[in-house]
Amino acid sequence: MQRIQSSLDRSFSLSRIAMGLWRLADWKYTSQQTLELLEQLLGLGVTTFDLADIYGDYRCERLFGDALKLKPELRGKMEIVSKCGIKLMSDNNNYALNHYDSSGTHVTAAAESSLENMRIEQLDLLLIHRPDPLMDADELAEALDRLVSGGKVRAVGVSNFLPHHVQLLQSRLSVPLLVNQIEVSMLQSAPLFDGQLDYCQRERIIPMAWSPFAGGELFTGSGEAARRVQACLEELSRELDMEPQQLALAWLLKHPSNMAPLLGSGRVSRLRNGVAVLGRELPREAWFRLLRAARGRDVD
Amino acid sequence: MQRIQSSLDRSFSLSRIAMGLWRLADWKYTSQQTLELLEQLLGLGVTTFDLADIYGDYRCERLFGDALKLKPELRGKMEIVSKCGIKLMSDNNNYALNHYDSSGTHVTAAAESSLENMRIEQLDLLLIHRPDPLMDADELAEALDRLVSGGKVRAVGVSNFLPHHVQLLQSRLSVPLLVNQIEVSMLQSAPLFDGQLDYCQRERIIPMAWSPFAGGELFTGSGEAARRVQACLEELSRELDMEPQQLALAWLLKHPSNMAPLLGSGRVSRLRNGVAVLGRELPREAWFRLLRAARGRDVD
Amino acid sequence: MQRIQSSLDRSFSLSRIAMGLWRLADWKYTSQQTLELLEQLLGLGVTTFDLADIYGDYRCERLFGDALKLKPELRGKMEIVSKCGIKLMSDNNNYALNHYDSSGTHVTAAAESSLENMRIEQLDLLLIHRPDPLMDADELAEALDRLVSGGKVRAVGVSNFLPHHVQLLQSRLSVPLLVNQIEVSMLQSAPLFDGQLDYCQRERIIPMAWSPFAGGELFTGSGEAARRVQACLEELSRELDMEPQQLALAWLLKHPSNMAPLLGSGRVSRLRNGVAVLGRELPREAWFRLLRAARGRDVD
Repeated sequence: MQRIQSSLDRSFSLSRIAMGLWRLADWKYTSQQTLELLEQLLGLGVTTFDLADIYGDYRCERLFGDALKLKPELRGKMEIVSKCGIKLMSDNNNYALNHYDSSGTHVTAAAESSLENMRIEQLDLLLIHRPDPLMDADELAEALDRLVSGGKVRAVGVSNFLPHHVQLLQSRLSVPLLVNQIEVSMLQSAPLFDGQLDYCQRERIIPMAWSPFAGGELFTGSGEAARRVQACLEELSRELDMEPQQLALAWLLKHPSNMAPLLGSGRVSRLRNGVAVLGRELPREAWFRLLRAARGRDVD
Repeated sequence: MQRIQSSLDRSFSLSRIAMGLWRLADWKYTSQQTLELLEQLLGLGVTTFDLADIYGDYRCERLFGDALKLKPELRGKMEIVSKCGIKLMSDNNNYALNHYDSSGTHVTAAAESSLENMRIEQLDLLLIHRPDPLMDADELAEALDRLVSGGKVRAVGVSNFLPHHVQLLQSRLSVPLLVNQIEVSMLQSAPLFDGQLDYCQRERIIPMAWSPFAGGELFTGSGEAARRVQACLEELSRELDMEPQQLALAWLLKHPSNMAPLLGSGRVSRLRNGVAVLGRELPREAWFRLLRAARGRDVD
Repeated sequence: MQRIQSSLDRSFSLSRIAMGLWRLADWKYTSQQTLELLEQLLGLGVTTFDLADIYGDYRCERLFGDALKLKPELRGKMEIVSKCGIKLMSDNNNYALNHYDSSGTHVTAAAESSLENMRIEQLDLLLIHRPDPLMDADELAEALDRLVSGGKVRAVGVSNFLPHHVQLLQSRLSVPLLVNQIEVSMLQSAPLFDGQLDYCQRERIIPMAWSPFAGGELFTGSGEAARRVQACLEELSRELDMEPQQLALAWLLKHPSNMAPLLGSGRVSRLRNGVAVLGRELPREAWFRLLRAARGRDVD
């Protein structure tokens, strides 16, 4: 599979398509089943696994670790991504409400706890999950720098950050923010126009795209935009002999910011299908037909 | 009292809580009464006094000067802030409408007139009051640089400027813009999210917060958001044993941009109350509960 | 006539008022008639002629070239501007929809085709017509740099780009982007407030203003804002003894970004009228009265 090499750190790379494991706990897999999924993904070239402390009500990282323990030699073939900075109400804590915490203490503790839950020595990538209005950039940068220099984290990045958030945090960090993981899809196309992806392209930050199918809306949604997209996907599916899911991925992959979409299905057949799209570039007109369908209007 | 030292000019500082005198003319104080207010504020550690040429229909600065004349030795214990750049219709002029004027000529004349009205030799800080769509950055920067080099103004800043306004003016100035005075409160929380405060934090510009209680709406407003905030303030007031006004200030003081709220009451008891909040940091959950109340929704 | 010299390239200048030829094909002029128009404009000092590959359904540039061929010595007295990057459905092609193409191949071919159609050796200025969401900045910058170094294009710029688009493209280019051609008028005043013109002023990019009369709405529109502007233009017309069209131009010319409005009329009397406004600066209050009329509210 194609890989995305960071221009900011040549020794860092991700697989062009990454696997999101936020629903791992929902699948009720045994550790053995999870291991099989991981192995099949690695076989397809999908080496980047995306997690977060809070996924599955704080349980996914442990489930992932349980599977990995069955075959620890797989660790070296993967990039493991985690995120922290959200405090989610749960039976495991007594938070009065969902909130953010980007304090040095919390981020350090969360990263260490992710390592412990997955029983690994180092995260390949640690992302700050959401922009915290109380982000003290000096304090957070110091904590992230220390996690990197101490070897607990290979590289750092952010998620759902707007350019001004990135600029603030980067202004205090010694190491570069390599990744911004944001929501992008045909039905969430604002980042293509409002400067988010332009900023990534300019600063050579790798965008990872979460919810690349808009949570399934692209294929089954009943809103007006979704139905227009569905009709266009059908047409193009016939014309180009590609499946709708493949078209949706190819639409993202064509963007020059070189983003990595996150697939989230537990079914290998679907994942195989998605991966098969690599190497099939969408023609420019087809791309704009999908954009027109999504926005309900022509370009200016 | 805590002080805010500018990272851009180590010899410049403000008191953490500043006094806004835009209603000085409304209070109908004698000069002696105003002097007593100033002395009490200085006694509380509030050393920063915020004025503008136009306050009180162009009368506040003279009233302030009248009081200061009674005890000129107080001058050395204060930071006096003024603003200019608005032309307000008044009996003193024949403007056809309220408008802005950031021309070199007007800004220089306005600063000199503020000095004369207050009978002082130097403004500690001169702010451009509003972003003027006709701002000629080269001309304005030259005027501001000259006011500083000529000693009439100790330092310069802006008010109600968005980051792009600051960047434009700063690009032509020799001296740094030390302050941006903007409206921020629980009911005007956009600057926490749209990059205004992130930009201040990044560039180490001191934010001063005007209308920190949203003109009283926080405590007496009848809008939906105001009522949600009031209910939350009451709850927290009981839980934390702090007054609503103190909570509202503590909410601003917790922000890592290290902002200076402007109090505007003429009653010393209220001011004393406000100042007393320094040193009592709001817990993170309480901060987010107030944010949720203000916005009517949880964080993402 | 005043000229606008680029601060980024001292040898590059435009006439303060430029001529837009997007309707040239509509006028049904003979080449001789077009030539006469060009000569009269040159006589007025209007030396900058604005075209685009797509104008007049891809026909304007050829019509312009036909006229120029009648008197080739005029070429040296003009700045010829063209634009490319839009693919418009037309009898000349089989595009399935209107879309953008900022690929190196397309932009290079389009520029060469413009040269061929106008039968000239070099464009003075080539603009990318619209921000393409698929803009690969590296590829486009390489193509533009090559057009400049190869002598086919004297200088480059953009059109309808927001600051983040400019920053992205500029980050990869060797040569500076000298111009951003955007829509600005009293009825499209957002660029004065949202940072577009501030960014131009800061980076010393020359703004060209298209549709400076909002397509005539300023004088004949029936919307609320248009009617308020019309009433104010009438008042000021009497007070200042200037025609409404002149006032509308003077309003743009007063802006410190030093923009070049594009006139688009084929009638010389109108153009002469417009040009006559140069040297008559609008008083600041009159400028703000027009702004108030356009926005329906006072400044803050």
